[in-house]
Amino acid sequence: MGSKSDLRVMQEAADILKELGVIFEVSIVSAHRTPERMIDYAKSARDRGLRAIIAGAGGAAHLPGMVASMTTLPVIGVPVKSRNSIDGWDSVLSILQMPGGVPVATVALDGAKNAGILAAQIVGAYEEEVATKLASYKEEMKEKVLKSAEDMESKGIDRNPIGFKSN
Amino acid sequence: MGSKSDLRVMQEAADILKELGVIFEVSIVSAHRTPERMIDYAKSARDRGLRAIIAGAGGAAHLPGMVASMTTLPVIGVPVKSRNSIDGWDSVLSILQMPGGVPVATVALDGAKNAGILAAQIVGAYEEEVATKLASYKEEMKEKVLKSAEDMESKGIDRNPIGFKSN
Amino acid sequence: MGSKSDLRVMQEAADILKELGVIFEVSIVSAHRTPERMIDYAKSARDRGLRAIIAGAGGAAHLPGMVASMTTLPVIGVPVKSRNSIDGWDSVLSILQMPGGVPVATVALDGAKNAGILAAQIVGAYEEEVATKLASYKEEMKEKVLKSAEDMESKGIDRNPIGFKSN
Amino acid sequence: MGSKSDLRVMQEAADILKELGVIFEVSIVSAHRTPERMIDYAKSARDRGLRAIIAGAGGAAHLPGMVASMTTLPVIGVPVKSRNSIDGWDSVLSILQMPGGVPVATVALDGAKNAGILAAQIVGAYEEEVATKLASYKEEMKEKVLKSAEDMESKGIDRNPIGFKSN
Amino acid sequence: MGSKSDLRVMQEAADILKELGVIFEVSIVSAHRTPERMIDYAKSARDRGLRAIIAGAGGAAHLPGMVASMTTLPVIGVPVKSRNSIDGWDSVLSILQMPGGVPVATVALDGAKNAGILAAQIVGAYEEEVATKLASYKEEMKEKVLKSAEDMESKGIDRNPIGFKSN
Amino acid sequence: MGSKSDLRVMQEAADILKELGVIFEVSIVSAHRTPERMIDYAKSARDRGLRAIIAGAGGAAHLPGMVASMTTLPVIGVPVKSRNSIDGWDSVLSILQMPGGVPVATVALDGAKNAGILAAQIVGAYEEEVATKLASYKEEMKEKVLKSAEDMESKGIDRNPIGFKSN
Amino acid sequence: MGSKSDLRVMQEAADILKELGVIFEVSIVSAHRTPERMIDYAKSARDRGLRAIIAGAGGAAHLPGMVASMTTLPVIGVPVKSRNSIDGWDSVLSILQMPGGVPVATVALDGAKNAGILAAQIVGAYEEEVATKLASYKEEMKEKVLKSAEDMESKGIDRNPIGFKSN
Amino acid sequence: MGSKSDLRVMQEAADILKELGVIFEVSIVSAHRTPERMIDYAKSARDRGLRAIIAGAGGAAHLPGMVASMTTLPVIGVPVKSRNSIDGWDSVLSILQMPGGVPVATVALDGAKNAGILAAQIVGAYEEEVATKLASYKEEMKEKVLKSAEDMESKGIDRNPIGFKSN
Repeated sequence: MGSKSDLRVMQEAADILKELGVIFEVSIVSAHRTPERMIDYAKSARDRGLRAIIAGAGGAAHLPGMVASMTTLPVIGVPVKSRNSIDGWDSVLSILQMPGGVPVATVALDGAKNAGILAAQIVGAYEEEVATKLASYKEEMKEKVLKSAEDMESKGIDRNPIGFKSN
Repeated sequence: MGSKSDLRVMQEAADILKELGVIFEVSIVSAHRTPERMIDYAKSARDRGLRAIIAGAGGAAHLPGMVASMTTLPVIGVPVKSRNSIDGWDSVLSILQMPGGVPVATVALDGAKNAGILAAQIVGAYEEEVATKLASYKEEMKEKVLKSAEDMESKGIDRNPIGFKSN
Repeated sequence: MGSKSDLRVMQEAADILKELGVIFEVSIVSAHRTPERMIDYAKSARDRGLRAIIAGAGGAAHLPGMVASMTTLPVIGVPVKSRNSIDGWDSVLSILQMPGGVPVATVALDGAKNAGILAAQIVGAYEEEVATKLASYKEEMKEKVLKSAEDMESKGIDRNPIGFKSN
Repeated sequence: MGSKSDLRVMQEAADILKELGVIFEVSIVSAHRTPERMIDYAKSARDRGLRAIIAGAGGAAHLPGMVASMTTLPVIGVPVKSRNSIDGWDSVLSILQMPGGVPVATVALDGAKNAGILAAQIVGAYEEEVATKLASYKEEMKEKVLKSAEDMESKGIDRNPIGFKSN
Repeated sequence: MGSKSDLRVMQEAADILKELGVIFEVSIVSAHRTPERMIDYAKSARDRGLRAIIAGAGGAAHLPGMVASMTTLPVIGVPVKSRNSIDGWDSVLSILQMPGGVPVATVALDGAKNAGILAAQIVGAYEEEVATKLASYKEEMKEKVLKSAEDMESKGIDRNPIGFKSN
Repeated sequence: MGSKSDLRVMQEAADILKELGVIFEVSIVSAHRTPERMIDYAKSARDRGLRAIIAGAGGAAHLPGMVASMTTLPVIGVPVKSRNSIDGWDSVLSILQMPGGVPVATVALDGAKNAGILAAQIVGAYEEEVATKLASYKEEMKEKVLKSAEDMESKGIDRNPIGFKSN
Repeated sequence: MGSKSDLRVMQEAADILKELGVIFEVSIVSAHRTPERMIDYAKSARDRGLRAIIAGAGGAAHLPGMVASMTTLPVIGVPVKSRNSIDGWDSVLSILQMPGGVPVATVALDGAKNAGILAAQIVGAYEEEVATKLASYKEEMKEKVLKSAEDMESKGIDRNPIGFKSN
Repeated sequence: MGSKSDLRVMQEAADILKELGVIFEVSIVSAHRTPERMIDYAKSARDRGLRAIIAGAGGAAHLPGMVASMTTLPVIGVPVKSRNSIDGWDSVLSILQMPGGVPVATVALDGAKNAGILAAQIVGAYEEEVATKLASYKEEMKEKVLKSAEDMESKGIDRNPIGFKSN
């Protein structure tokens, strides 16, 4: 992440990676304040055994794109809605609109959780164990929705609408 | 891709995948016109041996997100600037802003080439041969820029500015 | 609705439908977390006797459009301004900008009440009783405005502007 | 429609209604240039036997909302991207963002075809014959996509990608 | 104004008109809830002796434009940032972007005070007394700024910057 | 107008003022290139007998607001969509969003014709002759729409839709 | 700055200039309320020995551009997100989008600190002492990030991720 | 500049610098394709005697900000509206919205000419000769406007409006 203040958002990526059994490292690498460290980080990433990099940053967010320019690993960008951001548009566009040749896999504004899942999907494309955890995670999400739906249908919303019974 | 008219944009993904030595398939799967086919496609993708899916669509672009909801493979979304699009914002936002749990790896508007490279990077995270081709591709991009720079510095722009010599 | 958290907004649709004497059901159907349930819901809707479907969702809101792709009933979409939404633009555009052939009748951001009224208008186009209730509802809205206007004209705003008497 | 120049867009609504066997009338009613005619039109619509009204207009597009204020019929609004429009945002927002109590069923920018289909869906919710035509129309759209997909899979795109075979 | 809730914003127009000695009336006239009253209001305005009309409304704000369609008086529109507004863009665009032939003199978002001053300027173009008050008002604004500037220059901001002395 | 290139748009203001019998002058006054001339122009305007000022400018359009800061006459601003403009948003916002105390009566993007009509309405609020011409102008607009409508109803659009007969 | 209320934002410019050893003055100069003072200020600036001018303003922010029109000094513009601003877009665009010939060096929304640093960089391009302080400032920023990074790597985030060690 | 294709826009910076007698160099330095070269360039710039750097780039434009992170010279950023840009917003925001500590002096979209002038102003703040040329340039701009104005006033626009004579 580009700054300590991004942890508020980026924590969710760490949490879901842990839940999905993917080993990860986390640190602060600022494109604008520690450019040398960023270069170091990006260039050594593949050799240190990483399979993907998640980079979160706000405002004129150059970290994901600059990291992507210096590695052949897939780089996932998380646009962070920082203080003084123009509603998040700056973060989104400066991560998403990369020129031809240097992609950044951009997720939703403040979408650190999805960045974690996407990283796990990349790993899971080749590692069966992670794929299995992803499938379970998907199943759990479904179960939660079905449970909410059932509650709503049986109890109504606050008066008593007729619940949906699909058959 | 969601419609035949998207080929104009999506062709670039096919071209770069070919260049990078990644085997791929290409077809038309419309979220809104052939939902059953989309379901079929998404659900069978992993078992058919795919490692990633690139989905391009325009306007209220639901294809990438819906495919992502039905597979644990990484899904790459290409926002296509279709006729009647509101400057591409509709395609971008309906692909990018996925809810927690179901990421789509979004690339730039009409960024099919980058989608292809990103797919190759996912493969390349595990397959050395593709990683090597990605590294060469990066090197070539660099050489092209250096060549242009050298031209500009030696010949000037149209009159004769002093070229940059970094040492 | 796509998630339990949308109830905060969608409740208003239920309330107004009740007030207008239109029978309805309400449940949770997530495009991205329970795609099969969504398909089931959409495909069975006409045969279960529904006349219209209201679908509310936020962010990359695919529920209304995907339901519309699988039924010939009119589908009303409510863009919900969810947490992490980019000011609601994502919800609005991913519901509104449907491709040719698959319309969604979109109402204002968080406009669940209007979705309810629109559903009642669809019913009311054929069922006299509902049409009559809609006419009364319109009359009541008018009466409320006239009452406010009269108050303002007779009492002034806080000092004493001259009220409007159209004669 | 609000002006003769809107015919360029609105023609598609007429065409699809014809194709779907829905009887319709078409005329020019300007909110700002012929307000009395608009009032007349809106107030008499139900009694003249209409089931829904399609109103298309551009810029500060007041026609759909004003018509909706004077009828209990469902009103479908088509935002037209007129000359001098600010990329269509003005048309979209001044039709979509109606206040509570007076909905307009808004379709995509220049989405006249979808307005026609939506009108047919409203009719089709009660008239079996139209519902049947809508179902056939849906089927045809699907067939066209499947045909394109088959072509692409059998012939490749321009070189020879491996087509998708879902089983 | 279009609704009682707009008073929060529109009060400022009344206040400044009072301060500038311009006689005015104030009431509630809803384009969508009381269209007949709006027509009445707009059509009778000139004969009742008005010189200008200020109309404030939010969301899909049709009041100013519809009033303008039915009078030859100058109509001043105040875009109100209402609840559920998309950041005020809807109000601004649906008031500003009027078609050729029917202007609305639009002021800033929630700019009711400026609407009042603009109305006074219209009156002041012909009535000397109001023009004189406008000139004094301008002078007072200037004096206030000069006073603040002097304070800042003599006292510093919170430490002691060197004040600006223009000669 | 701020530059000769704005004439393309501003010509329409001159044309309609002529048609409405309002005497006017036209010149080029650039806020950024001839600030002294602008000051001169603004300060002398009332004494030279003007009743209103129309100022058109593009990009960071400061002319209307700066003129407004130096006169008590009503100032009408025309946002011009200049080359390099960001879709006109820059012109619109830098004219519309004036601070409290200094209004600019803003019309639509490139809406010079409406600026002319608005100026005529200001004059017409006090000068009967102009008011009469404005009323005729309104009547003519209406007649043109009614003529188009009649044509469309009698001849159909290109096949033969049933025309609207309001009684 | 354009108004006393901008001090909340502009204070940061003063603070950083002080820290970087650059002498400065600070005052209030309103483009719209004290245009003569603004002219005075801009025209006398170079002769009074200034090397650069920082101008902060909100809404339709004309101060930076108007000052730039009357001096050959570099003018730095700070878009202030004022009350009633449309999310800051108005301030940004009316400062940034200056016509050819009259640049304003625009910094981020509410970016007064960066305006101060930019002014110091302009001075530092010629005055060694300031350049040295800028270099130290850059170094300190870097140290702070490295310290945060080290903390995060040694202590983990809240559970215990594996820290990044670049070699 | 970031790519050869930017020359179309950036040429204007070279032209105006030449006209203003400022010595300059021009080359291609891509943030994403030649990051090492960029680092080299930025780090050596001050020692090679530069006083300011102009960096133009489009899309997710990281060049200006990354250069700024590695030098204490003032960096001027030119947002280029590249092919596939989302109307230029991406370029503008990814250059403008730099985090605290690392300013980029941003000019208008495609505003290379203004970047050249701004660079000259920075030089001119210390070098009298350039300041004099800037003053002449300003004078010429003014003369051109006055000439156009005089033409328009003497010849009318196409019929014969009454010209403005300020005294």
